[in-house]
Amino acid sequence: MRKKLLVLSVVGVGVATGLSAGEKVDPLLAMARQYFQPLPKVVDNPQNPVTPEKVELGKMLYHDPRLSKSGLISCNTCHNLASYGVDNLPTSVGHGWAIGPRNAPTVYNAALQIAQFWDGRAKDLEEQAQGPILNPIEMAMPSKEFAVERIKSIPQYVELFKKAFPNEKDPVTYENIAKAIAAFERTLMTPSRFDRFLQGDTNALTQKEKEGLKLFVEVGCVACHNGPNLGGNMFMKFGQVTDYWRVTRPYVLKDKPTIPVDVGRFAVTHKEEDMYVFKVPPLRNVEKTYPYFHDGSVWKLEDAVRIMAETQLGKKLTPQEVDKIVAFLKSLTGEIPKHALELPVLPASTDRTSKPEFK
Amino acid sequence: MRKKLLVLSVVGVGVATGLSAGEKVDPLLAMARQYFQPLPKVVDNPQNPVTPEKVELGKMLYHDPRLSKSGLISCNTCHNLASYGVDNLPTSVGHGWAIGPRNAPTVYNAALQIAQFWDGRAKDLEEQAQGPILNPIEMAMPSKEFAVERIKSIPQYVELFKKAFPNEKDPVTYENIAKAIAAFERTLMTPSRFDRFLQGDTNALTQKEKEGLKLFVEVGCVACHNGPNLGGNMFMKFGQVTDYWRVTRPYVLKDKPTIPVDVGRFAVTHKEEDMYVFKVPPLRNVEKTYPYFHDGSVWKLEDAVRIMAETQLGKKLTPQEVDKIVAFLKSLTGEIPKHALELPVLPASTDRTSKPEFK
Repeated sequence: MRKKLLVLSVVGVGVATGLSAGEKVDPLLAMARQYFQPLPKVVDNPQNPVTPEKVELGKMLYHDPRLSKSGLISCNTCHNLASYGVDNLPTSVGHGWAIGPRNAPTVYNAALQIAQFWDGRAKDLEEQAQGPILNPIEMAMPSKEFAVERIKSIPQYVELFKKAFPNEKDPVTYENIAKAIAAFERTLMTPSRFDRFLQGDTNALTQKEKEGLKLFVEVGCVACHNGPNLGGNMFMKFGQVTDYWRVTRPYVLKDKPTIPVDVGRFAVTHKEEDMYVFKVPPLRNVEKTYPYFHDGSVWKLEDAVRIMAETQLGKKLTPQEVDKIVAFLKSLTGEIPKHALELPVLPASTDRTSKPEFK
Repeated sequence: MRKKLLVLSVVGVGVATGLSAGEKVDPLLAMARQYFQPLPKVVDNPQNPVTPEKVELGKMLYHDPRLSKSGLISCNTCHNLASYGVDNLPTSVGHGWAIGPRNAPTVYNAALQIAQFWDGRAKDLEEQAQGPILNPIEMAMPSKEFAVERIKSIPQYVELFKKAFPNEKDPVTYENIAKAIAAFERTLMTPSRFDRFLQGDTNALTQKEKEGLKLFVEVGCVACHNGPNLGGNMFMKFGQVTDYWRVTRPYVLKDKPTIPVDVGRFAVTHKEEDMYVFKVPPLRNVEKTYPYFHDGSVWKLEDAVRIMAETQLGKKLTPQEVDKIVAFLKSLTGEIPKHALELPVLPASTDRTSKPEFK
């Protein structure tokens, strides 16, 4: 973990200074550049290079509810591009109105993470995109083959797969469905004023936001929330100092009094040290991606900041400190790229397309 | 009914010829102009004038799942702008995974109709938009007041309502939510090649499509499916010649063997003559708005055409005739306007925003 962090930091300093020899750097900016980097335009994957053809196809699939058994639920249902890539629900609703166990993370900037899902059980977006389609309480497709057959029954999709995967004999595969979706997602970067700050425009942040940034580093938030996405690049126990559920319980909505304790990454690795360990969530657009934590238990960003300081760092922040850190966090609200807000027109089904099933 | 049809026809001829004196009109075009009119750009409503401010606000509300109790379902869930304004399900899925009784009609060109819903129980889109938000098996909001309070808790919405309804003291009302949504919907016109034909470009249709158009008129489909939206301007009994359910039953999916008989407009008027009477569905984009009929029982357009001829006109069409009519109907597939495919960015909730409820 620590090693990864250091590597990222060094890269950040090397890439982002953009200074002539002898030029003076603002001390806060210099400090920030030790921990954070501006967003790239695209996060490419040599195993799945991002091409315009894949992105176009991936966007259609991302919005296509026929990737669910019911024909009702698409990737966009829970990772809504119009609301910063989330559904703003505590935990998501899936097939048959099943209420899932964890909060839907945002798809924006998600490509930057070391792994996907709260417990990191998928190594990248290409693997992640394969999960929810088959999950019986999410999109509930009966099998990979079923999903492939449904897509193959639509001639326009078959053409688009040929263009997106030009050297493959039989390009409509389950893996390629996920690869196309992932390629689209790899373009979903939301640069904000904080990027302009990191690029040298020290006026891009207000005085209060700068004080928040300074506190964010000094209090220790930065130990986990660093890199270009201010998180998403390591795993950490939720509840370093206090069991997390003891602290979050008072915030849970009245109609949901008993959120079960979540063992986190332990369920994936079965290692004792992974008990209650989660991927550190990225903080880009955190102002918009409420409610917070893996269980969506906390709705106010101020509360989330206070709880983090208490459970992770054993610190009690003053209301003024919380206020400043929140001001800084709001400077991470970015601009959604135009192409992410342009809906595709979905191709029509055919006689061969399997019908929706609600049960 | 008949009167309405004639009025529309006369208007159509007057407006759409665009000929200089003495110019010859193609006979098929002349015939077509007796029954059909090109789409307008906007269908305005003097009681709710379409303004850019209302359209912008209406589009946001159209996509906002916070108009549902769960925070999951928006207008767009069942009237998906990416799939020609429908969900392509037999009948729609709502709050708690409730399966509704009727097929979701398309929102595109819907403003042209004499009334809204299959049974015409709302006189216009302004009235229609108030229905599903409160329907317990659709968006399930507990009350109008609850909906208004949720929207009022979001400052950005309050500002947009002030701009959209500038002369009103308290512009965030349930009626204005519906008015804004309706104003957006009044701009959702999808002109097609058929409009170019009606405007005088006789090459806009292929020979086969023209033969289909001629049959469409001669067989008698045009008696109900006329006007700018090829339907939507009168009510008619489904099953003029044969009970509709006897004919559609063989087409119903195996997992749903017992679709109940729907009394149609009788449920609204309680008049004997309205038994099994429905609003004639418009045929614009019919190629894309499968499955067909009020119960979504039939998936193939060819079958729907055959059933219509049998149940409504007592005619058995040959496969060749069906084929030609279907070719004509596909020429009604229009272009979705660009602004309908541009997603809004939804404003964030606040502490005062009521939380999603799944039960």
